[in-house]
Amino acid sequence: MAICYNPPSLVKPIVVRPSTSLSSTPKPNYFRCNLSFPSTTIHLPVSEPEPVFASVKAFAPATVANLGPGFDFLGCAVDGLGDFVSLSVDSSVHPGQISISQISGDPTSKLSRNPLWNCAGIAAIEVMKMLGIRSVGLSLSLEKGLPLGSGLGSSAASAAAAAVAVNEIFGGKLGSEQLVLAGLKSEEKVSGYHADNVGPAIMGGFVLIGNYEPLELKRLIFPKEKELYFVLVTPEFEAPTKKMRAALPLEIGMAHHVWNCSQAGALVAAVLEGDLVGLGKALSRDKIVEPRRAPLIPGMEAVKKAAIEAGAFGCTISGAGPTAVAVIDCKERGEMIGEKMVEAFWNEGKLKSVAAVRRLDRVGARLVDSNPR
Amino acid sequence: MAICYNPPSLVKPIVVRPSTSLSSTPKPNYFRCNLSFPSTTIHLPVSEPEPVFASVKAFAPATVANLGPGFDFLGCAVDGLGDFVSLSVDSSVHPGQISISQISGDPTSKLSRNPLWNCAGIAAIEVMKMLGIRSVGLSLSLEKGLPLGSGLGSSAASAAAAAVAVNEIFGGKLGSEQLVLAGLKSEEKVSGYHADNVGPAIMGGFVLIGNYEPLELKRLIFPKEKELYFVLVTPEFEAPTKKMRAALPLEIGMAHHVWNCSQAGALVAAVLEGDLVGLGKALSRDKIVEPRRAPLIPGMEAVKKAAIEAGAFGCTISGAGPTAVAVIDCKERGEMIGEKMVEAFWNEGKLKSVAAVRRLDRVGARLVDSNPR
Repeated sequence: MAICYNPPSLVKPIVVRPSTSLSSTPKPNYFRCNLSFPSTTIHLPVSEPEPVFASVKAFAPATVANLGPGFDFLGCAVDGLGDFVSLSVDSSVHPGQISISQISGDPTSKLSRNPLWNCAGIAAIEVMKMLGIRSVGLSLSLEKGLPLGSGLGSSAASAAAAAVAVNEIFGGKLGSEQLVLAGLKSEEKVSGYHADNVGPAIMGGFVLIGNYEPLELKRLIFPKEKELYFVLVTPEFEAPTKKMRAALPLEIGMAHHVWNCSQAGALVAAVLEGDLVGLGKALSRDKIVEPRRAPLIPGMEAVKKAAIEAGAFGCTISGAGPTAVAVIDCKERGEMIGEKMVEAFWNEGKLKSVAAVRRLDRVGARLVDSNPR
Repeated sequence: MAICYNPPSLVKPIVVRPSTSLSSTPKPNYFRCNLSFPSTTIHLPVSEPEPVFASVKAFAPATVANLGPGFDFLGCAVDGLGDFVSLSVDSSVHPGQISISQISGDPTSKLSRNPLWNCAGIAAIEVMKMLGIRSVGLSLSLEKGLPLGSGLGSSAASAAAAAVAVNEIFGGKLGSEQLVLAGLKSEEKVSGYHADNVGPAIMGGFVLIGNYEPLELKRLIFPKEKELYFVLVTPEFEAPTKKMRAALPLEIGMAHHVWNCSQAGALVAAVLEGDLVGLGKALSRDKIVEPRRAPLIPGMEAVKKAAIEAGAFGCTISGAGPTAVAVIDCKERGEMIGEKMVEAFWNEGKLKSVAAVRRLDRVGARLVDSNPR
């Protein structure tokens, strides 16, 4: 998870033109975009699209990336937690530009209103570039529902909501894969070029990142008839992505590599088969990343133990932490597990924490409101 | 793939008693055996089983292990190639013991008729131990259909056929997972404690090895309605497992680890979804093992290129080599691809080779003949 800090030299909101090169390029754009396993060539519209709404509001869910042995290539979306982006056509904003009018929600003090330094702003600009928007100015309002630096994909949620909002206000010309590319521009700037949060934030469900050049995203469909709940326990503790990444080994022994690969395979199989026991087991068996990161989060090892003892199918660190994530098939049991995890964070780590039990989000970023022109 | 060499000090066939400790232990045996993802406790019969057949004949298929990023934890069985084991109740063999009466087929000169040094013999003894056979002597005949050291699971096929034959002659009391454990005893002695050949040789289809302590095997079911063919091209070249294993890196950089893990996940997903394009792509993308081993097999890189240019969905080294394996959905196309691969082995590696196009074997080791008592 990444944080958009307010850079000291840039304190005033400014507006940004998506791209001078693009705005001066009237020729058709062809983005070759091999985004799913069968290769796809997406031909963008030659003409600049008109806005189809006066304003829209989009939601993007929190995401759990890494998932133990799924480190850096697998993530999933969780329902009911996330960020909102409201977007309106604004004649007071210079055509082809975007302005961030407001940021609300808990962690606003750290967030920049400069679109170039804001996760939502960067993704919105990217989508405007992709669509070739030159004649319409937009005003964006970001409502943060996710805490920063918690391991729940806060930056990705902002980027995803913004990307979807811009796309939808112009009639939804772009596919979800292109929106992920836009979100990646944002992630690249704030935390690194990783799609394991922004992929599921936009696409919903589980998403496997198969490649970056070209981007290949694979949806892993968890069976519709099965329930999957995440117990998310977030302690009051800062675990910056950079520090958590620095804790990782540079080299991995062959035995651990094979082990984690086999668990990654088992995890993917469990997702596709809706096998919660297998999913929990594979999730919990990372021998490479979790063993380095867990000791940096006070109480994490005890929290994992408590979750599994209380009946969770498995438990690991969400993203780069500090949130712990456990999996279960029942909300009530999840709440009980969450209590035990909160207790363990307090007893063993001396950390206050909050628990939430959330379903798998199968939809991803979407419009929640719109007003016609 | 491992080879059962004939050790110089043991040239005469001898008979072997499965286990003195077991044969002197009349108490019930309980093998706790958590072999599939849900844990299972298997209670073996208290009394020694009677043979239900006078003789049986079992077949076990060739296997393709490793499968690129599936290194050391994933394998699959291929139909129409494999080893046969014939087994008969033999009153001339001391009760509780086994004798190898004959070995036929191409590579017999290298194989020992001492059951302790023969893949089939070791596995047969293990199954006799598991069943507690003390009152019946067995005579075993091995018919090798697979070349040794080819990367097609020759030792595993012998072990699998023998394990199934012994189990079936006594009424099939053991489950396939226990037979894999017996086969593992054989693999351990001749090539290393790896179940990625003997697992699919016994169980058929694709098998993922999730753990060894306790053994966890996961069947990955390739959709029944889809076809999967393997183009197997075996050059006249020796690639001993030990040498091929010594070529592997001891340590792996994080980027390559994440890459291979993601491809392992994509490979598993492709198998379960019957996505041949995805399967071929993931199969071909190993950045850790294949790049070290391919240069040791003359022409291998050109063979892979030729296979893919000829329309194969993917290509890699089968097991530890030297066989190259490509995947396709059509037998005729497979034959054409095989020709191109043979050409490439000759043109680039100066190696003669033979091609075979075989279906995925979904059944695994099985009885092919039996005679009542």
